[in-house]
Amino acid sequence: MTTRILWLNPVATDVYDAPIAESLRRAAAEHTHLDVLSLEPPGPTHLEYSCYEMTVGGQLMATVRWAEDAGYDALIIGCFYDTGLRAAREIATRMVVTAPAEACLHLAATLGDTISVLVGRRKWLPEMRDNAERYGFGGRIASFRVLDMGVHDFQRDADTSKARILREARAAVEEDRAETIVLGCTIEYGFYEEVQRQVGVPVIDATLAPLKYAEYLADVAGRFGWRHSKVGGYQSPPAEEAAAWIPGGRPTTAGVA
Amino acid sequence: MTTRILWLNPVATDVYDAPIAESLRRAAAEHTHLDVLSLEPPGPTHLEYSCYEMTVGGQLMATVRWAEDAGYDALIIGCFYDTGLRAAREIATRMVVTAPAEACLHLAATLGDTISVLVGRRKWLPEMRDNAERYGFGGRIASFRVLDMGVHDFQRDADTSKARILREARAAVEEDRAETIVLGCTIEYGFYEEVQRQVGVPVIDATLAPLKYAEYLADVAGRFGWRHSKVGGYQSPPAEEAAAWIPGGRPTTAGVA
Amino acid sequence: MTTRILWLNPVATDVYDAPIAESLRRAAAEHTHLDVLSLEPPGPTHLEYSCYEMTVGGQLMATVRWAEDAGYDALIIGCFYDTGLRAAREIATRMVVTAPAEACLHLAATLGDTISVLVGRRKWLPEMRDNAERYGFGGRIASFRVLDMGVHDFQRDADTSKARILREARAAVEEDRAETIVLGCTIEYGFYEEVQRQVGVPVIDATLAPLKYAEYLADVAGRFGWRHSKVGGYQSPPAEEAAAWIPGGRPTTAGVA
Amino acid sequence: MTTRILWLNPVATDVYDAPIAESLRRAAAEHTHLDVLSLEPPGPTHLEYSCYEMTVGGQLMATVRWAEDAGYDALIIGCFYDTGLRAAREIATRMVVTAPAEACLHLAATLGDTISVLVGRRKWLPEMRDNAERYGFGGRIASFRVLDMGVHDFQRDADTSKARILREARAAVEEDRAETIVLGCTIEYGFYEEVQRQVGVPVIDATLAPLKYAEYLADVAGRFGWRHSKVGGYQSPPAEEAAAWIPGGRPTTAGVA
Amino acid sequence: MTTRILWLNPVATDVYDAPIAESLRRAAAEHTHLDVLSLEPPGPTHLEYSCYEMTVGGQLMATVRWAEDAGYDALIIGCFYDTGLRAAREIATRMVVTAPAEACLHLAATLGDTISVLVGRRKWLPEMRDNAERYGFGGRIASFRVLDMGVHDFQRDADTSKARILREARAAVEEDRAETIVLGCTIEYGFYEEVQRQVGVPVIDATLAPLKYAEYLADVAGRFGWRHSKVGGYQSPPAEEAAAWIPGGRPTTAGVA
Amino acid sequence: MTTRILWLNPVATDVYDAPIAESLRRAAAEHTHLDVLSLEPPGPTHLEYSCYEMTVGGQLMATVRWAEDAGYDALIIGCFYDTGLRAAREIATRMVVTAPAEACLHLAATLGDTISVLVGRRKWLPEMRDNAERYGFGGRIASFRVLDMGVHDFQRDADTSKARILREARAAVEEDRAETIVLGCTIEYGFYEEVQRQVGVPVIDATLAPLKYAEYLADVAGRFGWRHSKVGGYQSPPAEEAAAWIPGGRPTTAGVA
Repeated sequence: MTTRILWLNPVATDVYDAPIAESLRRAAAEHTHLDVLSLEPPGPTHLEYSCYEMTVGGQLMATVRWAEDAGYDALIIGCFYDTGLRAAREIATRMVVTAPAEACLHLAATLGDTISVLVGRRKWLPEMRDNAERYGFGGRIASFRVLDMGVHDFQRDADTSKARILREARAAVEEDRAETIVLGCTIEYGFYEEVQRQVGVPVIDATLAPLKYAEYLADVAGRFGWRHSKVGGYQSPPAEEAAAWIPGGRPTTAGVA
Repeated sequence: MTTRILWLNPVATDVYDAPIAESLRRAAAEHTHLDVLSLEPPGPTHLEYSCYEMTVGGQLMATVRWAEDAGYDALIIGCFYDTGLRAAREIATRMVVTAPAEACLHLAATLGDTISVLVGRRKWLPEMRDNAERYGFGGRIASFRVLDMGVHDFQRDADTSKARILREARAAVEEDRAETIVLGCTIEYGFYEEVQRQVGVPVIDATLAPLKYAEYLADVAGRFGWRHSKVGGYQSPPAEEAAAWIPGGRPTTAGVA
Repeated sequence: MTTRILWLNPVATDVYDAPIAESLRRAAAEHTHLDVLSLEPPGPTHLEYSCYEMTVGGQLMATVRWAEDAGYDALIIGCFYDTGLRAAREIATRMVVTAPAEACLHLAATLGDTISVLVGRRKWLPEMRDNAERYGFGGRIASFRVLDMGVHDFQRDADTSKARILREARAAVEEDRAETIVLGCTIEYGFYEEVQRQVGVPVIDATLAPLKYAEYLADVAGRFGWRHSKVGGYQSPPAEEAAAWIPGGRPTTAGVA
Repeated sequence: MTTRILWLNPVATDVYDAPIAESLRRAAAEHTHLDVLSLEPPGPTHLEYSCYEMTVGGQLMATVRWAEDAGYDALIIGCFYDTGLRAAREIATRMVVTAPAEACLHLAATLGDTISVLVGRRKWLPEMRDNAERYGFGGRIASFRVLDMGVHDFQRDADTSKARILREARAAVEEDRAETIVLGCTIEYGFYEEVQRQVGVPVIDATLAPLKYAEYLADVAGRFGWRHSKVGGYQSPPAEEAAAWIPGGRPTTAGVA
Repeated sequence: MTTRILWLNPVATDVYDAPIAESLRRAAAEHTHLDVLSLEPPGPTHLEYSCYEMTVGGQLMATVRWAEDAGYDALIIGCFYDTGLRAAREIATRMVVTAPAEACLHLAATLGDTISVLVGRRKWLPEMRDNAERYGFGGRIASFRVLDMGVHDFQRDADTSKARILREARAAVEEDRAETIVLGCTIEYGFYEEVQRQVGVPVIDATLAPLKYAEYLADVAGRFGWRHSKVGGYQSPPAEEAAAWIPGGRPTTAGVA
Repeated sequence: MTTRILWLNPVATDVYDAPIAESLRRAAAEHTHLDVLSLEPPGPTHLEYSCYEMTVGGQLMATVRWAEDAGYDALIIGCFYDTGLRAAREIATRMVVTAPAEACLHLAATLGDTISVLVGRRKWLPEMRDNAERYGFGGRIASFRVLDMGVHDFQRDADTSKARILREARAAVEEDRAETIVLGCTIEYGFYEEVQRQVGVPVIDATLAPLKYAEYLADVAGRFGWRHSKVGGYQSPPAEEAAAWIPGGRPTTAGVA
């Protein structure tokens, strides 16, 4: 039985869709069918600012509704701010939803005592720190280390990126006593393996971890009915209201990588 | 010198604009010029669900940009979820921004040791609890008490609403040992005075407290330059990017109550 | 490629081995080969007391060593106290290790905001509360509810057990505002489905959740090399020392269910 | 309508009364009437030690009683330890009471994510850390930085003081990732503006922030009746008892700056 | 070698000196010489209000100085608010200082997982809760239970007091799952034994526990030099300053019970 | 009346028994009769790994049962991991049980605001940090400093050990602002005095502090009946079960130092 998973890049550019799709498909379980999607331009091509997260909110919610209707088993919102995670879970009734920070931090906390998150800019810290706290892992954070790179810098010159990540990962392990490393941006894909080999601790990739967490969540949802609880924070809005207020959805699957 | 404050009801209905404007103007300082605004329909007329908060995100950000450009000294985002507060502070460079939960909880924590928040529905709790934690007041919450009313119920039958609020406020003080009460929805306006008189503890109204906090913040911003810090979480996006990605703003002040 | 998982009942009785094996095998992934094992009598047949956990410590460690040597990909220590989890992870270098409380709480925290854990006796609470805190979920616990049943009571009269669990689960959802339920003993197996159906929130079974979490962890370990970090708390003892001090291991797989 | 605010320097020296009065009056609202007062010598001229706080306790309480009776709308206890804040709020029934650490930390937490407090001596840290925790801002403190100066050093050589504050403020922003700076002693007055100009983040002055917070609190007290709650920690002692036990009060307003 | 311990009732009445002295002497170690002292009238005869704690501050500090000079090995400040504990430790350089809440909570946390504190009035809670937090035991408090009695009520009618304490202690164990009980006022002396016998959990008396903790602290101070650290929060004020500012001390030991 | 205290080195070597016994006896109260015991070889001679703690679990529990039966008043489990403390307290009904980390941290938190713990290896940190959190002192830890020495290194070359401890203690006080130092391994005995003399803050020895805490606990147990509560986490297992499952105990006191 196939598990249909949607990786949604909540940005108005599809430049990362194909490489992420390719990488995730290599890593997916045999029974997983993976689609990758991004938002329609024009709009923010990165979400380094919370105001961009809000700006894409409407289209993001529409896409979540579409994904739920389209029968996906799991949805991954592909931004390390976990943009709209709570909101998406309200909409999802059958589908499970996860996101990179949640998936990476749960996993890192299982693999070691302390975690260092390597982020692009200092600006990202407060929102990510808040998320870590909310998920329960605030006390496990050894450090946030800043790479001084923006989202679109990571894949521009892979060697430079890898070198910086390597340097900060080493410092995190040695100076901050981190036992695990989390790469705190989905666009830091492609680097974990080499860094892990050299540093010798788990280096969690922010695309692969949520893929596997999504497979796991979809598995327990399908088998045991363990889905997002509907009696509290993830309660769904009344169907009629939602239909009226959450804009139209996605007419076709054109554009799915 | 006039302080220009904008109360923004982040919902696509203006039914609450006039009564809120009237009530706030009665309470405003002499030098305050207050405008009240809501979003353009169609769209959610309440934000009980986080997915509605995301849905209005684009128009909300556009309005925040407009308010900053229009020269407001302070902006209040009129929803007790404090929808988009972080995002709005990124956009604001001169203007200060606040919101009901922040303003009410800071004040209540100054007036008493423990706080009970009277909310409409159980569904609201997780998001409000998270906010209380982030603001630093998690340990001060004596209880969240649920009135079992939706946003649009509060003003439908004022006597019923007041009676329920009174009953829960009393129970909060007697059973939960709350020392202060916060009315956890902006549409619970009009009730604080009578409840306070009967219960004998401060009952903080979620429209008046942020108005006064906004006046205070605008005052210290104007006099001492104490505005939202721009070196971290409230850093503004590059101007060109923001201009391109945050949709158009508000063409006219038509519709300002 | 087969994933070999060992469920270890850390008690000196095999009465639960066959039913747990049967239930887990029904739930396991196709590629999972599952073994179930318990300890050699004489010794404690339940671990309700921490002194029994210590008493089985030697045999438990020996079995962990044996499992690592025998090539298991994942080990589950089948007690909701997560007995010896840290210790087992020191020994494991290739194998991943998990346990019920860890697996259930991570999952429940992903599915809802708040959790109620249904335990057998009040006596269990302090140790379980400590574990919940250490894992990061202390702030998410809506309640521990006590069933007033010992480990060996749960399967004695399934109808009574189910009725009590149902009653407390309902109360947890209604009175404590729990959004998810966790069955806080592995021997509460067999009940989750009916209770979940009646109460309408996720009811997490303490055998199935760790099985699936183990499959997930083994998957990411095998694919990406994400294993327990060896630079800190899970560092392995020197091989020679461990060989000398951790008693002999398990001569045969006889007794594996 | 005039708001009468009393700034009380809880030390037995009036050397700071005039400069603080002058500075505060420049910053006060038009409708504010500000008095500045200190205690009668002999006695401690600074409160760097908690034993001095206790020593001035009797005279401090007497002055609070006098201020309440004299009809002040707000009282500010002018020491960054917030000496006797809880006690003063018991006595105050109509008057509101605040103090520098409370006012500065609430404001800083509103303006940025993290706070660095620049204090005079390491000795001050435990008491200030405790206060920050109690107020809810412990998790927001990026650092306490020590200037190695006593209370009476700050105004002795303003250039040296400013240079040290500037150096530590810069380090706080760059090394500790502070987003806001709080000057952790009332006698650090006169420096915030220049430091803020050079460092580029809000630098909160410990005299101006509580003045404005007091005006805000007096405003909401007067308009809405939001005063310190009397059902719990701020309950007033029986009038007769208080009259007998809290020594005489202040016979004249002579000495009010 | 004799250990000289001073129990200081920080209230301006000696009515409790003799009974407390008698009870403590029965419980003291053979080598302990115990004195009991109270403050000079006129002044508060109880400290239920924080403003009374401040009011007695001057005389309290003077007595601490006198005790240090008089060669006491340990000082106990006999109020469950632990009035002036930090301040007294600044003054003490050779002498150790403790107080009831500190001693009782440390002990209770060693004897059981959770603690219920039985206090006189709801008014006391915020200050006691703050102390419990500061000492590290906030997470261990099962409940504060309110007896609705003032300090001077406890010994007025011993049978009534005991009956109320018994009732609340039982409820604490059964309803709040407290594993230990702390009597949260020194004037609740004389009741612990009977209550403990009937309830079956440790019931910690707020006079006996600090006596024994003081003996223990004096023992390790004398043998190993483990006294209050002087490099931070307990640093002593300069001798000359302290001599000038902390009023005169106690001329004679007249009045020592 | 004699207080009988057993110091149990939970390791299968008696090399430390005699020196610890000698040092403790010099420090014990007159009425204390002290025995020192270790486990039977073969087995771990140190417990740097949690898997060794589990390995000695059976013999440790047997010895605890023997100690309780043999009439000891207090038992100290001589490892800074506080191995099996909860378990031992279940078994003890008359005897009190303590351990080094508990005793040292309670004492250090009484003597100063912040604590630095000097441990042997980084590997030890997670377990010790967890214990500090559980005891309530997580927020008081200024730092864990790592000496890069194993248990058996400390007494090999006393001068080197002392020099390293001295260096890290100094750095802890100066760089980490520690107000007290705790030596985080029982085998760091013999060093505290010199280090304390040179560094000038309390340096708590991990053998002497628990001895004195045990004397104190035995004293209050004997006089007031304040023993480990039996209604919750320290409830004893049914006698018959425990007799059957906790292996045989210690036939003779041969081997007691």
